Amino acid sequence: MQELIEKIVQEGLVISEDIIKVDSFLNHQIDPILMRKIGEEFAYRFKDERITKILTIEASGIAVALMTGLALAVPVIFAKKTRATTMSEQFYIGKIKSYTRQNEVIICVSKDYLSQEDRILIIDDFLATGQATFGLLQIIKEANATLVGIGTAVEKAFQEGGNLLRTQGIRVEALARISSLAAGNITFE
Amino acid sequence: MQELIEKIVQEGLVISEDIIKVDSFLNHQIDPILMRKIGEEFAYRFKDERITKILTIEASGIAVALMTGLALAVPVIFAKKTRATTMSEQFYIGKIKSYTRQNEVIICVSKDYLSQEDRILIIDDFLATGQATFGLLQIIKEANATLVGIGTAVEKAFQEGGNLLRTQGIRVEALARISSLAAGNITFE
Repeated sequence: MQELIEKIVQEGLVISEDIIKVDSFLNHQIDPILMRKIGEEFAYRFKDERITKILTIEASGIAVALMTGLALAVPVIFAKKTRATTMSEQFYIGKIKSYTRQNEVIICVSKDYLSQEDRILIIDDFLATGQATFGLLQIIKEANATLVGIGTAVEKAFQEGGNLLRTQGIRVEALARISSLAAGNITFE
Repeated sequence: MQELIEKIVQEGLVISEDIIKVDSFLNHQIDPILMRKIGEEFAYRFKDERITKILTIEASGIAVALMTGLALAVPVIFAKKTRATTMSEQFYIGKIKSYTRQNEVIICVSKDYLSQEDRILIIDDFLATGQATFGLLQIIKEANATLVGIGTAVEKAFQEGGNLLRTQGIRVEALARISSLAAGNITFE
């Protein structure tokens, strides 16, 4: 998606060979008009999939997911992060390993909002190692719902998440695929 | 706002005399079309205020704030919650006291995105004790920005936040004002 790529080029800050900050329009300050265009693009790409719900994780996935839900006219669910060790039976649970923080985050979705009739599109702002997505996949599996695909605004294609998902036969749509952040330069695929 | 009130009547769950859950369309699952209407209503009410930015707090304020930003065509900033005790000088800081959890949450906004030229509209999903809002007011004050007002989807008018803010001369717009949750009934003002 050319407009997103241009925005990343203009405003993205390369922090290291692994990390790019896009806090000026995606992760802290949000550009609502760009978000709407991103949502419309995902809606267009997945328009034939009879999607019933969008699933994302708080907090920075919400904006992109909300605009996709608006364009498809379906509800958006955001999984909540929790540190609770004893969760009630009212929730589907997923686990996210964090390599940087060396810990595990539990995410949960109320059983009231996902069922086996649902056809789910996962939407997120970033796809890198894929750990967050794998947590959401656990939740979809527990609910016996159907995953129709994954949409990410930005994919760090030099990390393994996208390929791990695609080799499982999952459709992954990324609007900006970054192949390298080496030497402070942002290279797109 | 009649449509929001009707949705609360239909789907709100009264948990106690203080707590109502609206997880089916606002705080966990989100209804994007209703969110857009809420955003348009705030934009209409504050249309003459020359707003430059919307400010909210992650996570459940983001949806309402994003749609208000879309309707006003201005950026949306969400303050991040952190447990960091040593914050860098790059952030404006606010503190939120939690009476239920007996602790304090630090919220922060990067200095890159707020300045003294900004005219800020605070948008949130709920206004109750007002503690979250007071945290955002600290941030606006630190930035020497101008607060033009506060928009909340739901106000628990039987708690003190709204009145504390209004007696300071701050304009507070609430789209649904709940005056009581006694005996399991939702009463609106």
